[in-house]
Amino acid sequence: MNAVPQDIFHKADELSDEVRKPFPRSRKIHVEGPGGLRVPMREISLSATKTANGIEPNPPVTVYDTSGPYSDPDVKIDLRAGLSPLRESWIAARGDTEQLRGPSSIFGRIRAADDKTAPLRFEHIRAPRKAKTGANVSQMHYARQGIITPEMEFIAIRENARLDELRESYEAAGYLRRQHAGQNFGAFMQKQITPEFVRSEVVRGRAIIPANINHPELEPMIIGRNFRVKINANIGNSAVSSSIAEEVEKMVWSTRWGGDTVMDLSTGKNIHETREWILRNSPVPIGTVPIYQALEKVDGKAEELTWELYRDTLIEQAEQGVDYFTIHAGVLLRYIPWTANRVTGIVSRGGSILAKWCLAHHKENFLYTHFEEICEIMKAYDVSFSLGDGLRPGSIADANDEAQFGELHTLGELTGIAWKHDVQTMIEGPGHVPLQLIKDNMDEQLKHCFEAPFYTLGPLTTDIAPGYDHITSGIGAANIGWYGCAMLCYVTPKEHLGLPDKDDVREGIITYKIAAHAADLAKGFPGAQVRDNALSKARFEFRWEDQFNLGLDPEKAQEFHDETLPQEGAKLA
Amino acid sequence: MNAVPQDIFHKADELSDEVRKPFPRSRKIHVEGPGGLRVPMREISLSATKTANGIEPNPPVTVYDTSGPYSDPDVKIDLRAGLSPLRESWIAARGDTEQLRGPSSIFGRIRAADDKTAPLRFEHIRAPRKAKTGANVSQMHYARQGIITPEMEFIAIRENARLDELRESYEAAGYLRRQHAGQNFGAFMQKQITPEFVRSEVVRGRAIIPANINHPELEPMIIGRNFRVKINANIGNSAVSSSIAEEVEKMVWSTRWGGDTVMDLSTGKNIHETREWILRNSPVPIGTVPIYQALEKVDGKAEELTWELYRDTLIEQAEQGVDYFTIHAGVLLRYIPWTANRVTGIVSRGGSILAKWCLAHHKENFLYTHFEEICEIMKAYDVSFSLGDGLRPGSIADANDEAQFGELHTLGELTGIAWKHDVQTMIEGPGHVPLQLIKDNMDEQLKHCFEAPFYTLGPLTTDIAPGYDHITSGIGAANIGWYGCAMLCYVTPKEHLGLPDKDDVREGIITYKIAAHAADLAKGFPGAQVRDNALSKARFEFRWEDQFNLGLDPEKAQEFHDETLPQEGAKLA
Repeated sequence: MNAVPQDIFHKADELSDEVRKPFPRSRKIHVEGPGGLRVPMREISLSATKTANGIEPNPPVTVYDTSGPYSDPDVKIDLRAGLSPLRESWIAARGDTEQLRGPSSIFGRIRAADDKTAPLRFEHIRAPRKAKTGANVSQMHYARQGIITPEMEFIAIRENARLDELRESYEAAGYLRRQHAGQNFGAFMQKQITPEFVRSEVVRGRAIIPANINHPELEPMIIGRNFRVKINANIGNSAVSSSIAEEVEKMVWSTRWGGDTVMDLSTGKNIHETREWILRNSPVPIGTVPIYQALEKVDGKAEELTWELYRDTLIEQAEQGVDYFTIHAGVLLRYIPWTANRVTGIVSRGGSILAKWCLAHHKENFLYTHFEEICEIMKAYDVSFSLGDGLRPGSIADANDEAQFGELHTLGELTGIAWKHDVQTMIEGPGHVPLQLIKDNMDEQLKHCFEAPFYTLGPLTTDIAPGYDHITSGIGAANIGWYGCAMLCYVTPKEHLGLPDKDDVREGIITYKIAAHAADLAKGFPGAQVRDNALSKARFEFRWEDQFNLGLDPEKAQEFHDETLPQEGAKLA
Repeated sequence: MNAVPQDIFHKADELSDEVRKPFPRSRKIHVEGPGGLRVPMREISLSATKTANGIEPNPPVTVYDTSGPYSDPDVKIDLRAGLSPLRESWIAARGDTEQLRGPSSIFGRIRAADDKTAPLRFEHIRAPRKAKTGANVSQMHYARQGIITPEMEFIAIRENARLDELRESYEAAGYLRRQHAGQNFGAFMQKQITPEFVRSEVVRGRAIIPANINHPELEPMIIGRNFRVKINANIGNSAVSSSIAEEVEKMVWSTRWGGDTVMDLSTGKNIHETREWILRNSPVPIGTVPIYQALEKVDGKAEELTWELYRDTLIEQAEQGVDYFTIHAGVLLRYIPWTANRVTGIVSRGGSILAKWCLAHHKENFLYTHFEEICEIMKAYDVSFSLGDGLRPGSIADANDEAQFGELHTLGELTGIAWKHDVQTMIEGPGHVPLQLIKDNMDEQLKHCFEAPFYTLGPLTTDIAPGYDHITSGIGAANIGWYGCAMLCYVTPKEHLGLPDKDDVREGIITYKIAAHAADLAKGFPGAQVRDNALSKARFEFRWEDQFNLGLDPEKAQEFHDETLPQEGAKLA
């Protein structure tokens, strides 16, 4: 095992250049807010337009930025120390938490004392923080008390991307020209996002702020249909294929291209240690599927899972700082037979683990029967639910069937319970759905889950293109985002075929940024069209560099630019 | 110039292996029809399912096949001889055409006698065929006479892809399980396509069969909203970047991946010769934009274009066998000022050429004023109109504006005139349109152009992703196909940046096959889900090779398959 830690320490000192180099002519800026808030954004500078009458400058464009301190050349990154804990003072100031002396999970304690994994371990592990007895530290709880937290203030500034401040300069430059009215299917698009609007959406359960009190490093963000559509990137090593250092690099890489959250789906023996490295260095919320780790603890034998072991895993991960948990509590015993006649049965890994457990014991899913106890854990750390769709369709044929919708209705019932506890909740969705059934799926979710944010994988709109499932699913993702889905889980070109490498991650993320942005435009999110207009203007004026730099992937655009095309020059149209 | 012809003759003997090798476990089959018709399709063989009770064979799947004789190892290809003229006897049997002694266009005659270009010339040039005086040889004309042509018989068989014949075997294998009802927005999806239905759709102008009497090599296909959604791939050399041989190879490459038609957008001095090579070797309809060549003839000076020169170009190309012409007859003088306030003005090349001409002469577009004369040429060779959208939006900002819709209404007026002449007509569409405006665009076209087939470029649903515009536009293409668009013009990753190479062409085509197929599923085209179900079944049973082979790109799927994933084996679910 000696190779691994060496690898970590080596990479820790120097993330590869490609994940840190700033985009051309972009700079990190910080917008100030109340109480010393500094909200990071990216400003893209543009060259002037040459007209017959001289030079007309083009104002810079400010864009939403997920990349954290990594894209800021002024910040010294030391992966071994972790990111600066931005939210630590906010959390402490609320006075409703206490610092524990050490991990309270059994596994966390065993692992902290384990010599064998010591070389893998992140060195600066903080003692976990937990709500004081009886306290509820969820953002939903604060919101319902009428409190606007610094997280909410931060998010309001972030979502606006300085639109109001820059409106005049944008208007003068034509960046707001013909912003088309959206069709938002009943969403509430605001002209400007206020902290009070953020709060009210969290109160109503229509948006969540995944922000574990043990992940103070994160830059707060929001997931809800009345905000910008977000995307998630999955990373995670498998026993054979990658080291911890590679996973940290992949996390940073994901945020560089626009991942709003990252799910760590690692398997294998060192999940606990990998997760710690990722969390301490992640500026975005981290999600996990705790049943994966629970299964590792029983050597892959689903029938040996117990509530106690699962519960311990939740606490272990909550105390590390995981921001949302995928929990497949809707896979009920009675739904399992409904999957027997499917073309592709149960394809969700979590779904099949729980189905196996239910059938082996002929008992109701223990995540369902212990759901209120899970809520107690969630609210003590502010972990958000991502209620898993263990029965999601794995093929076009199985879309929107009774098993899928049966589970969805149960997720709605569980949403009601979670909200009773003021626990933030989003709902996971499919999967594989043909175009004409996507809206039915979205509407069913909005109705039965009371507009709790929907978080879907794709959906893939056809099954016939292995090797291109980022595209089959990007089509579905754009549509469901438009219809009201709040977060889109990316799919890479390697889906169904193999494990994604860095190029696949980039391709998957850019595809999903496209889908999310197409949805923002379609819903009429205020100012969404600014970047399109600025880029189109640059394109029309043959300002090539500006066109590249305003794009989602300036590096690829530059690389594709071909010498056979016209060079920089003014078009006097 | 010696290098070029050598290049041609070398490549003519041996197209590169990669464009001809059959897909794994696929074979070319021919379905017989009346009068000795042999309609080519591709049959994909599958391995058996291993169950606890033994082996269950999986019947092969038959798919629509655009690749012509190139994917048939039994056919000897000689690019210098051209493909066998499949339709020659059908055309001759109609007795309404005559073989001319030579080209009747001035340019065609000059070129035929030109020593300098002799080495570039395709050697077996047939004398052109033309309608006898007063005759109309369009498929629309025959249809309106109540005649079902062999082309229509061929198409009916082709569209069905043996669904009825194989229904029982498909049903037994589960390939027809849960075929979802479509939402087709007023299209008329048939359970089975009959020759009479083909005829009636052509009568009504709701579908076209692009099939010039001088392109007897083509395998007939149909473009209309009540048939499979088709895709077009653009090829074309520019003076500096490729030879004739490369263009022929690119045409074959396009049909291999699924291009239903190919547009030759070549520029430079040898357009005429390049086109002849492409046509003689193309199994799919070829479209062109004649104004490009006309402009070459006046050294790029738009204001020097004349009706006479353009007319000669139409005849030149019609006698070579071009199946459809993009004609920008809707760019009216009065619409041009409406583009002045756009973010991206006029981005269509044809549109700007004609706008320049109109403004220079302050006269109405000569394509509009001579439209009926153009119809006379079209019906003498059965060239179909593809009425160009010279004022299409080049940015999200400019979508669905008065210039675009003004032109669209004029295209509707011209459709009525073309139909009066029994000339087949489709309508080109944009461009750049955000998701929420695509349906309006489609509905506007259906209404004002009386359901004449719509043929759109994309549309791109956002402008912010140069380098990924196959994806920004694939999203729009899937949606507009679902709403009723009949053919989707592909966009490659190099759009806006450079000229596509072979990899880009493949990526663009596969993206558009995905969009077209997603649309077929959404509209509920009969049997469209067979391939999805067969692939999903293979996936669920870990029949990896079958999964790859049923996909749109078996080669890439195989290549992406990763050794870290489970190997072939039975899953007993």
